[in-house]
Amino acid sequence: MKLLLISNSTNQGEAYLDYPKGDIKAFLGAEIKKTLFLPYAAVSFSYDEYANKVQDRFNEIGYEVDSIHLHKNPIEAVRQAEAIVVGGGNTWHLTRMIHDYNLVDVIRDKILKGIPYVGWSAGSNMACPTIKTTNDMPIIDPKGLHAFNFIPFQINPHYLDANPEGHAGETREQRIEEFLEVNQHIYVLGLREGTMLKVLNNHIELIGPRPARIFRKGHKVVEIQPGENLDFLMK
Amino acid sequence: MKLLLISNSTNQGEAYLDYPKGDIKAFLGAEIKKTLFLPYAAVSFSYDEYANKVQDRFNEIGYEVDSIHLHKNPIEAVRQAEAIVVGGGNTWHLTRMIHDYNLVDVIRDKILKGIPYVGWSAGSNMACPTIKTTNDMPIIDPKGLHAFNFIPFQINPHYLDANPEGHAGETREQRIEEFLEVNQHIYVLGLREGTMLKVLNNHIELIGPRPARIFRKGHKVVEIQPGENLDFLMK
Repeated sequence: MKLLLISNSTNQGEAYLDYPKGDIKAFLGAEIKKTLFLPYAAVSFSYDEYANKVQDRFNEIGYEVDSIHLHKNPIEAVRQAEAIVVGGGNTWHLTRMIHDYNLVDVIRDKILKGIPYVGWSAGSNMACPTIKTTNDMPIIDPKGLHAFNFIPFQINPHYLDANPEGHAGETREQRIEEFLEVNQHIYVLGLREGTMLKVLNNHIELIGPRPARIFRKGHKVVEIQPGENLDFLMK
Repeated sequence: MKLLLISNSTNQGEAYLDYPKGDIKAFLGAEIKKTLFLPYAAVSFSYDEYANKVQDRFNEIGYEVDSIHLHKNPIEAVRQAEAIVVGGGNTWHLTRMIHDYNLVDVIRDKILKGIPYVGWSAGSNMACPTIKTTNDMPIIDPKGLHAFNFIPFQINPHYLDANPEGHAGETREQRIEEFLEVNQHIYVLGLREGTMLKVLNNHIELIGPRPARIFRKGHKVVEIQPGENLDFLMK
């Protein structure tokens, strides 16, 4: 299994998908030519626009972006794919489309057989057992909270430590603690912006300039630095 | 119909439920003695603790807090209630419990017959047609996104204007725009912290020190000041 699970497409003040492009290239390698792209997390812009935006960046690293919305038969498109790329946006809309097109099992099969998967933001949420640790607004009924379940833990992308000054709502950490109250036997990894997880079978590497924050019910919260061992999350 | 829909229990640096207590007293009035409290949004603390915390504050304004979790028959407790109070916490957990106990219809009936409803945060989300504009993490399957549907528009409680400095995730406004893309014929009201809506039949009053922000697909975003007319939201 080969996964590159990226927290966020874009760091503040940078160009779209710029910071992770080198990592995507290193991950996909030289043999892959074409990636099957799922643009379903786009809501306030079109799938065409989304695919073009990603193609612009992927041109720089030498991959074709073949968007699934242009295929008459999305399941067959997945069966033929060399690599699958799932972009961010709204996790709920993404999940609904994936469920409506019955893509969970066919994508899971392909990934378990070894084709690479790249996701960012909502695309990283989808790699988890469920979308129960998304930050997004539930604008549409997803027809079930289950996701691809490639990994046995939950990622919270765009993990952030504090609220804006003066805001009294729950912090992200408090929200994750609530998740753990009702989901006690699972890890949650807070994946800060600018960072990503590379998963090769049962080995996980954290890439980027910031530590990840690991939560589990009954355990002390820990910060794991890039380079430290994260493989315990796969057990 | 009498609703008091509060953005947030507590302003930063203040005591729990302190700022809205005068408004709650003015709203409930002198005839009500006992309120039926729904503590189901509590996740990381017990229902007992939650009810006690609210009772402490309600003692100051002269109301008994009768928590529904202490009743063997929650539906019967609703039928006997003089007023219903729904506290904040996690909207998903609140919704799940309300659905599990089959409370939507019985509570809606009571409120449409005129007993007062006070909600804050998750309790304000529940007054809307659905919980699709909640900010909370979907830690549990709610068994449907439908809520009490007292009002025909959506509230986004804890509405905030900006992300923390340096954070690149979508802003609240961008999330609401996504909601409007897939829910085009409904208003969303961004209810800033420290403010609340008092709804008396088809009349709405905004109370507090900040304007509300009104969104609708195809319309310019508008800021409505306390005192301006909001009754168009009820049509």
